[in-house]
This record gives sequence, C-alpha cells and structure tokens, in this order.
Amino acid sequence: MQRLGPWSREAWTVLALHLLRSSRSPNTGGLFFGTRDLSPQQMAIREKILNAVINCFKCHGAKGIDTPVFELKEILTEKYGEESRLIYELKDQGGELLALRYDLTVPFARYLAMNKIKKMKRYHVGKVWRRESPSIIQGRYREFCQCDFDIAGQFDPMIPDAECLKIIHEILSTLQLGDFLIKVNDRRVVDGMFAVCGVPDNKFRFICASVDKLGKMSWKDVRQEMTGKIGLTPDVADQIGDYIQQCGGVSLVEQLLQDPKLSQNKQALEGLKDLKLLFEYLTLFGIAEKISFDLSLARGLDYYTGVIYEAVLLQSPTQQGEEALGVGSVAAGGRYDGLVGMFDPKGRKVPCVGLSIGVERIFSIVEQRMEATKKIQTTETQVLVATAQKNFLRERMKLIAELWDAGIRAEMLYKKNPSFLTQLHYCEETGIPLVAIIGEQELKDGVIKLRSVASRKEVDIKREDIVTEIQRRMSES
Amino acid sequence: MQRLGPWSREAWTVLALHLLRSSRSPNTGGLFFGTRDLSPQQMAIREKILNAVINCFKCHGAKGIDTPVFELKEILTEKYGEESRLIYELKDQGGELLALRYDLTVPFARYLAMNKIKKMKRYHVGKVWRRESPSIIQGRYREFCQCDFDIAGQFDPMIPDAECLKIIHEILSTLQLGDFLIKVNDRRVVDGMFAVCGVPDNKFRFICASVDKLGKMSWKDVRQEMTGKIGLTPDVADQIGDYIQQCGGVSLVEQLLQDPKLSQNKQALEGLKDLKLLFEYLTLFGIAEKISFDLSLARGLDYYTGVIYEAVLLQSPTQQGEEALGVGSVAAGGRYDGLVGMFDPKGRKVPCVGLSIGVERIFSIVEQRMEATKKIQTTETQVLVATAQKNFLRERMKLIAELWDAGIRAEMLYKKNPSFLTQLHYCEETGIPLVAIIGEQELKDGVIKLRSVASRKEVDIKREDIVTEIQRRMSES
Repeated sequence: MQRLGPWSREAWTVLALHLLRSSRSPNTGGLFFGTRDLSPQQMAIREKILNAVINCFKCHGAKGIDTPVFELKEILTEKYGEESRLIYELKDQGGELLALRYDLTVPFARYLAMNKIKKMKRYHVGKVWRRESPSIIQGRYREFCQCDFDIAGQFDPMIPDAECLKIIHEILSTLQLGDFLIKVNDRRVVDGMFAVCGVPDNKFRFICASVDKLGKMSWKDVRQEMTGKIGLTPDVADQIGDYIQQCGGVSLVEQLLQDPKLSQNKQALEGLKDLKLLFEYLTLFGIAEKISFDLSLARGLDYYTGVIYEAVLLQSPTQQGEEALGVGSVAAGGRYDGLVGMFDPKGRKVPCVGLSIGVERIFSIVEQRMEATKKIQTTETQVLVATAQKNFLRERMKLIAELWDAGIRAEMLYKKNPSFLTQLHYCEETGIPLVAIIGEQELKDGVIKLRSVASRKEVDIKREDIVTEIQRRMSES
Repeated sequence: MQRLGPWSREAWTVLALHLLRSSRSPNTGGLFFGTRDLSPQQMAIREKILNAVINCFKCHGAKGIDTPVFELKEILTEKYGEESRLIYELKDQGGELLALRYDLTVPFARYLAMNKIKKMKRYHVGKVWRRESPSIIQGRYREFCQCDFDIAGQFDPMIPDAECLKIIHEILSTLQLGDFLIKVNDRRVVDGMFAVCGVPDNKFRFICASVDKLGKMSWKDVRQEMTGKIGLTPDVADQIGDYIQQCGGVSLVEQLLQDPKLSQNKQALEGLKDLKLLFEYLTLFGIAEKISFDLSLARGLDYYTGVIYEAVLLQSPTQQGEEALGVGSVAAGGRYDGLVGMFDPKGRKVPCVGLSIGVERIFSIVEQRMEATKKIQTTETQVLVATAQKNFLRERMKLIAELWDAGIRAEMLYKKNPSFLTQLHYCEETGIPLVAIIGEQELKDGVIKLRSVASRKEVDIKREDIVTEIQRRMSES
C-alpha cells in the first residue's frame, strides 16, 4: 500500500537503543543521537520554570525577540574558539550554507547590526544545538533550551553589568535550587595576567581553555596540559598558577590593584578598576555576599571583552529520592563589546552585556525533586461531562459544547456508552475535580447533576445555571 | 586582534539584500533565505495569539509534549508524497543522517510508537521547516510555527474527529479573523472516486496533488495538467471533474450515498457514511453551518486515511490600512490511522486524528491590523526609578533592588546623572505608567515621590509603604 514507507536497519538500531535506555529511565523521554523527547510531565515542569525565568526578565523591562534556528554558516564561524567544531551544519541543497545556532548571543548581535539598533534590552528563549557528548545525569543534551537576557548600548560603566548579576541572583533564588555562588572575573584581567606571566599572544586562546578546566581538573593536571600540549615553560605556567588559584571578594580586587606585575598592565588595571566599581554596585543591590572574584574563571568563548561570570550550585540538592547531580554551572555570561561591530558594514560597535540561564540542568534538578515528591498534573481540565445511562452521547455532546463555548475546560470520553465507573476513574487518574452528569431524570427535570470527585457530593443544578456554577466553584478552588 | 572573525562576500550580499528588503517593509523583520527575525512588536502579537490557541487546546484537555527539531532522515522519508523534496537535511558530520522536521505530526506518531502509547490527547507548538519559495505577503516562510492538536486512540467513530473541527471553529472565532469556512472531505471518498473514474493506482498521488490545486487554478488548467503531464484520458479527467466541482452540506453526502457509481465502491461508501455521522455531531456542536463538504479537497500528504479538512478565510479582513492577503488556508488536518504503525516494530496501529493551526498567516493578518490601529506595547514595566538631582545613582540602585525583590516590574536609566526630562520621555515612549522619584528632600523626609505619567500628579509615599502603594495602583489599573 503506497502510503507505507520503508523502515531502515539504521532506524531499527536507534529504536532498539532507545527502548533499552527508556526502560532504564522511563522519565527522560525518548533519547537518541543526544536529543530527547519531552513527556507531558516534563513539559509541565518546564512551563513552570520558564514562566518564572521569563517573568524575571520582564520585571527588568526586557522585550522579546526571535531569530531563525539556523544562520549563515559565515555568521557563526570564528566566534566560539575551540568549540566551533561542535556546530551543526545543514546539507548544501543549493542556496546559502547554513548552520544551526550555537547560542542566542551571536544571532542577537547579528540582529542588532542588521537593524542598526544601538540600544536594546531583550530576552530570548529558544533552543540551541551543540555536537557534544551527551550526558543524561548532568542534563547535557545536543539540543537544549537557553534563556538569554542582554543589554545593548553605550551606558555608564558597570550599571548594566550589575543588573545582569542581580537577575541571575533573583532567578536562582526564586527557583530554590539550594545555595549558589556567582564567580566573577574580567577578560581584560585574564588577558593582562597572561601577558605579565609571559604567555605568547598566539597561545592565549588555548591557555584560556585549559584555565577554564581548573575545578573540573586539579591544578597539577591543568599545569601538565599547559606545559605539555600547549608548550608553556614550567615557569610561566607556575606564574599563572599563582594567580588563578586565588579567589575572594572586593578585598582581593584591591590587593591585585597593588600587585606590582599586574598593576603595570593597562588592560588588567582597567579590568580591576571596573570590578571594584561592580562590587560597589552589587553591594547596593544587596547580593555581594554571593559573588566571588575568581581568577580561574576564563570563559573560553572568543567574543567576551570585559566582565565575565558563571553561577554554580554549591551542592546538589539532597532531598530524598534525588540523584546527586554534581556541582555545575547553571548560569553564565559577560560583556562582549566587539561582537556587534563584526556584523556591521562600517564596523560600528554596540557594547553589550548579558546572561544565559542553563535551564536544562535546572530542569533535571526540579524534575527529580517533583518526581520524588508528588504526582505531576499534566492537564488543566475542570469538568468531565459524563452519564450513567446508555444512549446519552448526543446529550453529552450538546452539553460539552455549551461548556467549551463558555471557556470551561471540559472533557468527555470518546465512547458512545462508557461505563459510569470508567468515567469516574478517568477523573481520578487525570485529576479532574468535577463531573457534570446527565441522564434521563436530569433531562426531564432540566438539570445537570454536578459531582465533586473529591467529596463525592452530588447536587442538581438548573441547566441554565451550570456554567456559572462551575465557574464559581473553579474560582473558589 | 584574534577575536574578530572574517566577513565573507556571501554574507555581505545577504546583508545588502536584507537591507534593501527591510527598507521596503521595515516591520517584517530581517528576512533572509526565506526566514526572518521577529521584532519585539511581532513577538508581543505572537504571544497573544499563541496564548489564545494554547488556551483552547488546554480547554479540550490536551497535554503538551516536545520533540527535537531534527529527526532521523529515515523517519521523515515517504511520508509527504511530492512535498518530500522540501525537507531540509543536515550535513553528514559523522553519526546518523538527520533532517529538520517538516511538520509536528510525524514526530508525534514516532513518539507514540517509541513510547508504546495507545491513547493520548496532546498539543505541540513548535517550528517546522520547508524549502518552499517564500512569500511575505501571504506570510509564507521557510521556517514557521505550527500549533497542533491530535487525538490518538481507538474510539467510537467520528467523535474525536468532530472535536477537532470544533476546536478549529473555536480558535478562528476567538481570534476574530472574519468569516471562515471549513472544507471537509474523506480520503476514502477521494480514493474511491479516483477508482470509479478509472484512475490507475500508480497515478493516485499525482492526481491528488492536482485536484488540490482546484480553486488556486481553474478546472480547465487542472484538467490540462491531468491529461497532459499525468497522462489521464480526457474521459477519466472529465468524470473526476464532474465530482470535484461539487460541494455542499449533508444533503450532498446523502445524494452521493445514492450515486450509482460511487456507492458501489466500498471505500467511498464507508467514507460517506462516516461523513454523514460527522455532520450529525457537528450539528450537536452547533457548527454545521460553517462546514462545507467539498469533493475538491484532497490534501496531498501521504499519511491521511480518513476525514480531511481545511479552514479558509472567506475574505481577507478589510479594515483600513490592511493589505489584502487573499483567501488562504488558516487551519487543516485529518485522520491518519496508519502512520503510528509505520514506526512500531510489530506494525501495531494507533488511529489518530488531528489539526494544525496555520498561525503564520494569522500573525500576518493580526500584525497588519494592529500596526494600522494602535501602538503595540512591547514591555510590561510598571515603574521607572528616577531622580531630578545629580549623584543619586546609588540611591536609585538601592530603591530599584527593593522593588525588584518585591516582584515589581521596574526600570532605571543606566546613567549616573540622567536628566529628569530624559527619564520622563522614556516613560512616555515605552508606556511606563509610574515614576518613583528620589532626591535630597525625599531622602531627608524618608519618602518616595510617586508620579503618575498620565495625570502628572505627584504624591509623597513613606519609603516603607512604596511597594504596597505601587502594587495597589497596579491592581487597580
């Protein structure tokens, strides 16, 4: 029969793999080639979390925009340093060479340049794609959702930067993920530090990448990488080591402002002065105690030019039933003053600072918590239109149409003659609180029997009052 | 400087092209290679429309799911007939061959099969991709959003099918797009008609495609295509022509049930009987007068097996300032009982029926209407924290942090010493209703001056009462 297509061995393998996986962890949804489906339970949790994040963005006056999931390949190249190899490219089917976006920052910069926008506060929630090795436990997938907030425009120093950190603080507090810390550094301090330690310019990017590994790797291993693969002299590596193993508050900033070597470097000096101002603003915002100036924070991406930050959970939440997720970054961002200029014909710069919330990891944490604690409601149906007698399909259909037209969330079973028990069970399974029952007697009396699933109490309501009665009960609950 | 990447001639061309286009239609956002960016204005409109659609889906008890934007190429092939050539494929970078999803129906069927789900009512809002020739006027892009509602499971005939049509009716009525009509047919009637007219099996799919063109093309041209390219005999073509030029209500169904040729075809007979039952249910739902049984509706996609439908606007809304958009399909769907079985190792079937709302076209209509009538609010900020004096940045920061922590939507200008006028202008531009003013006097008196932008009235509020006062005013407005 022409409508049925072939089903390849390859697809079978994937299906088999999937079934194995999903039988192991039924709630992670279909996972293949590093992506996954999201079940209604997961979607319900996601909706709650995304609403909280978006609400916070709107609280700070951000406008929403959207961009295509793919960009000209040209737009994405040379923006992500070592990570560029993780970009998904589309097949050349004629026309332009395209690639799936790797983050929401580069498309935003492209958007600003193309529309000649010099000032904008925007948020963007959307999927991005990276060909990384996926990990269910850490909630890392090849397709994942990002929630970005960015402030573009020429303003007085550190005021927008401080607001970005305030937003991260607000969101992580609202979501109650447990204690967290926001590491802060400045790209100019990082580069200045490399310079005064004697790292050759052409090695900056690689050293950046390995510095970022400190914490995941011991200093000994990081040093090994620097002196080995990258080819720094042990002396230079140790000078870097002395710096990047320090972290603290504003006092460390002041101390480094006095550092004989670092203070001689113009870039580093600017960075440190800005960090000092930043800490002053963070104190005014009342969040300074959660901020740590951390010299090992380097953020590999090419486009950062100033302040950089990364929020980490201090310990994975340990309520019963929760798998340990390990400490991980749940938000990050920084200042990128050069990126928009790269997309402008005349190279006109628009300074930007922004943040990205790592919602996937947050989803994993909250999912585990909710699965462990309570049943997750996946529908919002208010009333089931039911009957206890045969041949009442037509009456049920007339009634449910009235309810739908009044905006009431109603369902009925798609059977001509469902058993009354089946209908009641459906309510209990799916959490529908009310049943509107119609039968011969009700029809004769011109009433509808309204039953509360919880209390099992039934009352007759005049047919013409049923809508208002249901609305009244819903507004009360 | 290593952070700056190259900027190719290709990208320049695209940018140039874009600038040309956008200067012609500044409100369509960046349009290139058939996709576009969405501006804050467009996003604000989209949010309203999508909320209305999703609310209706939830009214009918649907659960949300999500699937990856790409699927195994194998999953998508042989599902879309002639249109398969429009599928976007990903580059083979090692691993599986992937392609961007063409609709949300095939991923849903794959989801059901993989998770062995036999019964589900779900909605899915997401982007899909088709390599079509784009058209701004008709709101057709290569990347576009779909809103799908589907009912999977073995139920009594035509009850879920009728609900799908009710949902289309509810959504189009709620969105007030003007008068509309929902064309209905059944794939079995179409195939049966082809059979009794003597169309060879291997030509069904091509004839389907050209029948679909009736309306866009005259019967004369359709006939030309059938007898020419496809190679039907004129006699067969004319027999088809006699059928497909008919449309009407349930009476036409009854008439065709008596049709000597058609009634002899088992498939067609089943289809017609179901259509008769469908019309009965649609009458109970009170929407029959908007339904037209239309024999020229064929719906090219391979996977349909039963009832098919398509909603069209009868005339493009003609309020002043609106470009004529031409009559077009704004919703469509049908029954596909074979698709899930194609993804099940044992070929177990799960009957499905569903609908897809063509939100892009709806967006274009509403956008034009709103742009023509009123200014679109893109932010929801409630209060601007301002000052009339120099050196009050720190006080503004302390105050705005209090407001943010109380969940109030607040902004401030990112300047140390903005002029008071600039701050008031910002409120008027962006529609912020309140200004919280702090200065020396207020600081001394321990108050905040609260100004209404509209009335220009100012009152002093005790610092400790400012949050509740703003919340009170917001709840009133």
